[in-house]
Amino acid sequence: MGTRAGGAAEPANDAAARVCDTGPGTAGGTTAGDTSADVAVIGGGVIGHGIAFEAIRSGRSVVLIDDAPGSGASWAAAGMLAPVSELHYQEEQLLELMLEASRLWPGFAAALDAGAAGADSPAGTGYLTTPTLAVGADAADRRALADLREVQQGCGLAVEPLTVREARTREPLLSPGISCAFDIPADHQVDPRRLITRLAGVLGAEGGVFVRRRAAGLLWQDGQVAGVRLAGGGSVRAAETVVANGLGAAALEELPAGLALPLRPVYGDILRLRVPPHLQPLLTATVRGMVRGVPVYIVPRQDGTVVIGATQREDGPSDPHAVSAGGIYQLLRDAQQLVPAVAELELLEATARARPGTPDNAPLLGRVARADGADVPGLIIATGFFRHGVLLTPAAAAVCRQLMDFTPDPRWGGFRPDRFPRIPVTSGDSPKKEAA
Amino acid sequence: MGTRAGGAAEPANDAAARVCDTGPGTAGGTTAGDTSADVAVIGGGVIGHGIAFEAIRSGRSVVLIDDAPGSGASWAAAGMLAPVSELHYQEEQLLELMLEASRLWPGFAAALDAGAAGADSPAGTGYLTTPTLAVGADAADRRALADLREVQQGCGLAVEPLTVREARTREPLLSPGISCAFDIPADHQVDPRRLITRLAGVLGAEGGVFVRRRAAGLLWQDGQVAGVRLAGGGSVRAAETVVANGLGAAALEELPAGLALPLRPVYGDILRLRVPPHLQPLLTATVRGMVRGVPVYIVPRQDGTVVIGATQREDGPSDPHAVSAGGIYQLLRDAQQLVPAVAELELLEATARARPGTPDNAPLLGRVARADGADVPGLIIATGFFRHGVLLTPAAAAVCRQLMDFTPDPRWGGFRPDRFPRIPVTSGDSPKKEAA
Repeated sequence: MGTRAGGAAEPANDAAARVCDTGPGTAGGTTAGDTSADVAVIGGGVIGHGIAFEAIRSGRSVVLIDDAPGSGASWAAAGMLAPVSELHYQEEQLLELMLEASRLWPGFAAALDAGAAGADSPAGTGYLTTPTLAVGADAADRRALADLREVQQGCGLAVEPLTVREARTREPLLSPGISCAFDIPADHQVDPRRLITRLAGVLGAEGGVFVRRRAAGLLWQDGQVAGVRLAGGGSVRAAETVVANGLGAAALEELPAGLALPLRPVYGDILRLRVPPHLQPLLTATVRGMVRGVPVYIVPRQDGTVVIGATQREDGPSDPHAVSAGGIYQLLRDAQQLVPAVAELELLEATARARPGTPDNAPLLGRVARADGADVPGLIIATGFFRHGVLLTPAAAAVCRQLMDFTPDPRWGGFRPDRFPRIPVTSGDSPKKEAA
Repeated sequence: MGTRAGGAAEPANDAAARVCDTGPGTAGGTTAGDTSADVAVIGGGVIGHGIAFEAIRSGRSVVLIDDAPGSGASWAAAGMLAPVSELHYQEEQLLELMLEASRLWPGFAAALDAGAAGADSPAGTGYLTTPTLAVGADAADRRALADLREVQQGCGLAVEPLTVREARTREPLLSPGISCAFDIPADHQVDPRRLITRLAGVLGAEGGVFVRRRAAGLLWQDGQVAGVRLAGGGSVRAAETVVANGLGAAALEELPAGLALPLRPVYGDILRLRVPPHLQPLLTATVRGMVRGVPVYIVPRQDGTVVIGATQREDGPSDPHAVSAGGIYQLLRDAQQLVPAVAELELLEATARARPGTPDNAPLLGRVARADGADVPGLIIATGFFRHGVLLTPAAAAVCRQLMDFTPDPRWGGFRPDRFPRIPVTSGDSPKKEAA
């Protein structure tokens, strides 16, 4: 249910976009092996699309490679742009990147939405400066949110307490039984599905090429990465290759010898619901609740729908898109505790996807060092964005552009993908397998 | 979500089936107005398909008319064949029909499944003699089930109490917290989607014709019903017309003057879930629970899925297929209370449909009297089956065949569709509108 993701990232402007299938036996399109560009991006989620957009804006030619763009973690994402609410203890460096992303968002969205007649237009990204309310269910939740607020304030973030009455004046459908409420005006939202569609449309209109194939591995030449080897034959040659395919990154062949990409799937269930006319708007702010210590959020969209999410499961179901009955139950239970009218909504979709988690919850973003200390030329990694992919999209794109310009910002050096222990190798710095 | 019903009733044997579109502008097929048969059945749910199957078995030619067969209430039905559990107070005549249906089911299923290599085969109906356990959650539920058992026993039905330990020996995943359990060996199951597919396949193989159009109204000639007028033009001429399109029946034009079909939509939400391998089988019996006075059931299928249902809502949502968030929450909550492992299942589908309710919860089944007391020739009504459509299918088919043979069984006279007050008319017995 709710797992049909086809067409999410179809370019909005088909006439301008080139969609190649470089596989054998394909009528039309380019033939195997003859695609090349300045930049090859592996992965058609929000991150891959954002990097490709930034690369094309910098004057580079771009090929984006994905056999099912927009159908991974991005398909389930709620689209909260919430650096403040997402702050966790001991993740201050990640907070700096999230705040950078937050600063970049208005310009990033404006660049995309200008040609679409605004964020609200059907062709726009759905970027909205909706505020966020953090609310607690019981006394323990109140204490937890108050403690977190001290950390947030210590980081200079604006989090203002509201009385329950004040919160319910702003949001009349909030339960009178909540224990506390905090106003977080800086946490906003975007619609990830519309964002990808818009990014793909702009990318196509500006000459970006979409290769609807699975990337099998990296091409190497003279000790540097020279592009992408496609599953089933064919390749994309590129001066810079960006690995941005989420959990799929670790499975790519011909990664640099010894490089470990410690990604693990963290499954999440999410619901999309329609608000019946007599309850619209259900909410005007995004509500992020803590209910008996477990987070739940309700994101209102301008089209009369809301998104409720998200569980975090590391249970490894047989079907990676399997929606957890217990997860859906928990989301509905906790959302109803904060906003009882949730029971009156119409369930449109229940979706589950895996997000790429990392050991320190921070992304794997940067170049990779060889044994001699120099970076592997032609290769950038951009994965492991976990719960933060949508928020971090403009920051990831900016970081990658700086790397391509060879003007890296030292602030982000701590996110290098090679910061974890390397896999011992005996054959030096050659790739795991040198492609023909 | 979960509402795509296309193809449910595609004939299994396309080579043998004739699917006509008698609409204008259709290439191929028969042209408008030239279809005729001994029997025209309006409605492609379980009831319409069952009647059409019985008619063709009796040597009659049959046309079945539906623009979206199998997509209505049948699409959501769980398929419990449960005359005992479904007994309600003061519905003894309905019980007699349900028991008759229950007696007919083995032969009905065998006739269908013989050609499909058995009920378990992929082409079969999924008819299973799975027993049923009735279980209560709390002390009040125990008292309610014990009271109901007295009524059931008074009707000669077998309902045997089990200790909780006995029940959990049979079904280890039942919660130890249930208050009571009763064994109901006579309540079985079928898979309604497979049933319709199989019925359509046999019907097609035996020369039945499917008209994929909406029926607009009845054709009249010389004071009798002469067939069906199709929406958009064209018609199906028939000696007998059976109105079996559920809630759509009341909206048919040219119904007999003064006939009221007091149908109302009773919405129900239902879930389909996959049992992960380590929990299979979740249950071997169908579990029908009473949880704080509200019924919930869990039907295990042999393919490793279970069906959990069903709410009853008369709330009239804007979208008749809208799934209620509160309903889904309630089903998951109550099912988990009886079988905690339900939380571990994978949610495949949440579906909502409207069932055709009647004032006395009994079907509208039979011929309709004119003012002079004689029945309208050529017309049989078979709708209003509410929660009992799947169980009653063979009985409805048998009743209709008896009516076509002019050998009606007096036991079913109480289900005549004209038993409710008639709409006052001034123009006598002519139809609301005489078709050209």
